[in-house]
Amino acid sequence: MEKVQDYIASNKDRFLEELMELLRIPSISADPAYADDVRKTAEYVKDKLASAGADKVQLFETAGHPIVYGEKFKDASLPTVLVYGHYDVQPPDPIELWDSGPFEPIIKETKLHPGGAIFARGACDDKGQMYMHLKAFEAMMDAGEQPVNFKFMIEGEEEIGSDNLGIFCKEYKEMLACDVVLLSDTSIIANDTPSICIGLRGLSYVEVEVVGANKDLHSGVYGGAVANPINVLCDMIASLKDENHHITIPGFYDDVVVVSEVDRAKMNEAPFSLSKYKEGLGINDIMGEKGYTTLERTSIRPTLDVNGLWGGYIGEGAKTVLPSKANAKISMRLVPNQDPDKITKLFEDHFKSIAPSGVTVTVSPHHGGHAAVVPTDTPEYMAAHKAMEKAFGKEPIPERSGGSIPIVAMFEEVFGVKSVMLGFGLDTDDIHSPNEHYGLFNYYKGIETIPYFHDFYAQLKK
Amino acid sequence: MEKVQDYIASNKDRFLEELMELLRIPSISADPAYADDVRKTAEYVKDKLASAGADKVQLFETAGHPIVYGEKFKDASLPTVLVYGHYDVQPPDPIELWDSGPFEPIIKETKLHPGGAIFARGACDDKGQMYMHLKAFEAMMDAGEQPVNFKFMIEGEEEIGSDNLGIFCKEYKEMLACDVVLLSDTSIIANDTPSICIGLRGLSYVEVEVVGANKDLHSGVYGGAVANPINVLCDMIASLKDENHHITIPGFYDDVVVVSEVDRAKMNEAPFSLSKYKEGLGINDIMGEKGYTTLERTSIRPTLDVNGLWGGYIGEGAKTVLPSKANAKISMRLVPNQDPDKITKLFEDHFKSIAPSGVTVTVSPHHGGHAAVVPTDTPEYMAAHKAMEKAFGKEPIPERSGGSIPIVAMFEEVFGVKSVMLGFGLDTDDIHSPNEHYGLFNYYKGIETIPYFHDFYAQLKK
Repeated sequence: MEKVQDYIASNKDRFLEELMELLRIPSISADPAYADDVRKTAEYVKDKLASAGADKVQLFETAGHPIVYGEKFKDASLPTVLVYGHYDVQPPDPIELWDSGPFEPIIKETKLHPGGAIFARGACDDKGQMYMHLKAFEAMMDAGEQPVNFKFMIEGEEEIGSDNLGIFCKEYKEMLACDVVLLSDTSIIANDTPSICIGLRGLSYVEVEVVGANKDLHSGVYGGAVANPINVLCDMIASLKDENHHITIPGFYDDVVVVSEVDRAKMNEAPFSLSKYKEGLGINDIMGEKGYTTLERTSIRPTLDVNGLWGGYIGEGAKTVLPSKANAKISMRLVPNQDPDKITKLFEDHFKSIAPSGVTVTVSPHHGGHAAVVPTDTPEYMAAHKAMEKAFGKEPIPERSGGSIPIVAMFEEVFGVKSVMLGFGLDTDDIHSPNEHYGLFNYYKGIETIPYFHDFYAQLKK
Repeated sequence: MEKVQDYIASNKDRFLEELMELLRIPSISADPAYADDVRKTAEYVKDKLASAGADKVQLFETAGHPIVYGEKFKDASLPTVLVYGHYDVQPPDPIELWDSGPFEPIIKETKLHPGGAIFARGACDDKGQMYMHLKAFEAMMDAGEQPVNFKFMIEGEEEIGSDNLGIFCKEYKEMLACDVVLLSDTSIIANDTPSICIGLRGLSYVEVEVVGANKDLHSGVYGGAVANPINVLCDMIASLKDENHHITIPGFYDDVVVVSEVDRAKMNEAPFSLSKYKEGLGINDIMGEKGYTTLERTSIRPTLDVNGLWGGYIGEGAKTVLPSKANAKISMRLVPNQDPDKITKLFEDHFKSIAPSGVTVTVSPHHGGHAAVVPTDTPEYMAAHKAMEKAFGKEPIPERSGGSIPIVAMFEEVFGVKSVMLGFGLDTDDIHSPNEHYGLFNYYKGIETIPYFHDFYAQLKK
């Protein structure tokens, strides 16, 4: 492994330049206007994968954005690692809150990244973390060290639900056969506190529309006499939680697995400072479900959040309109055993049932996904543990994350294998937010850690 | 008056062409991007007022958009009528719901306007109705009939609160001295049911902002643990009304004048079909304050409506953001005796008091205005009554309107005179909505009625 690490050490500048070039392409999968850029990004990843030494590198077309595939087979006796990542990014909105262009990466120091961080949409999620795998692979190829068989599958629709990836995995199940899936799309607790994600929340995401009159009306002429869809939508959304911030949708909690007091106590031992948490967010108080701590609220409890809401006149100045309709995007984070389709149906039925007469309500499901829990007594988890310990000089802490990577559950279902979530970002890296960034320390530490993982994994699988 | 009516009859086509030219200029006062067009519109009105025969025609500059002024003095023994109108228009949003360009006027027949209607932003509110006065004046000048002294004051900020008009009226109080203000910015019940507006609701308009964390967050990482400003805003707005649609702001109803049972019974005798009302709006039910009829809810009762709300991701697709802030524009229609400043303060205090910890709330007042009631036993009201009866061949019905024209209360305060609201639009003309239109019948009928008003008013004031 020494040669591998030497190669990494002497190619750092180029590794960074290549990532910055990748970050300059606005691969916003949600917005059809960027379809060409999304494809350009896929081509870039494909070229870099091929030049790093992978075989059979190609783009697989889907009904949406293409999937980059490549592999490096060595020996049937070796375990096979399928590396997953995504090259698409979240929309940069609200664009006006960025200090620099979301697709003009620059390096700046921050309090938590004194060694500098790259600021750009996708810097951490997931271009930066995905690209670490290509560079680690390149280093291993150059050093002639290949302890495992490699397969790479880099998609372009993670931020819009990975629907076509699921179809692709089922169709190419044999080509993709593997012993483990390895991905870096999660976080560590801090740069001096490595951790490994062992749980993810599931997701149900819906869009709702409330329609009143067949056209926008003058609020003076009709106000007070006709349902105002914005007021009605506010009423309906407000009613989805009670005063304890419990979700009121009938049956919503039915399948939630109760976490034991012992496990909850253990979970709350993780390093966490409420005052620093509040300070970092600039808030004077937290808000969440009664009876649970912040760490529990963001990991073992399901949630309901409005991610977007709009209706009426939202331009400058005043307009006295009684709008015809109002819309909202609502997502629910789910915990293990909650079925996203069932939850979506429960939401839809309940939401329609609480609509007052005078309005029409439609509910359109977006993507969803199951929660996932990773066991810690497997060769793949142990390999990740040892790799992190080696690279950081410190044992990593197993941690459940509040986010969702629905494909982890899908991989288990289709391939029958577990995933290792070897992430290196920080929760404060502003992924999905303006000024997303990724520490240079984290980028390089990831590239250094990944070869150790493959090495330990091959040893533990013997 | 016969010569006047003849002139009108033989100039109809030109009157229409001139209005259409006026409608082509997008005088959106709320949007600074249209400032040049607003001025262009003022220049157009100024030129037409001068060519119609007015003297001392000029633009008065204000801190915002200019005011067009002109006059035609004849004799100190004659009463003076100050004609008021506005040349600015509401923003055309949502633009995608227009069947034709909002500033590309076209004429189409509708069910209620079998003789055709002009479709354009401002066709009815108020370019069309304002321009009737210029053409009626032109006809009277041409016929050599001037029963009153004329003053014209046409402003460009009615849709954004007329703040600068108030300052102008105080500053030029002597120049503007008059016996009555005449304006056409209201509606009639139907083309075969003339009516005169004798009451207007007041207005309090505020913009609110709810801020949570200091940046947008990932809803997976922070969801459930940190206040979501959209959910909080929905909770707060929902709490502003109870289950009977009563407004819950403490003190909100304190100054509302209780209308007698007799007056309410009389008001409910006005022609009104609930089934046609619902059919016209495409709704299966109405919604409003318990204990009041639709006619009462839109005239003698105050209201609270959200006119715009936005927060989070409102683009295509899904984004799992927990936004930093959410905003809403909220207006309250007020009834006589409710003071808009007091109501705004009550709203602000209450809204801040119900904000949960974990968010910061700001309330910014936009424009407001007092409600107004017009007595029906005055020469000016009687002149309007007789003019309508003459033009329509039918007695008009006195009616209280739900809309607000705050300047009517201001005119009374500054000039010490009453206003006559001689409007000719229909409530179904979609003012402030997509596809705003104004019937050709109504435009011409207005031009015909206005000279009768001046004539009767001069007689009754003798």
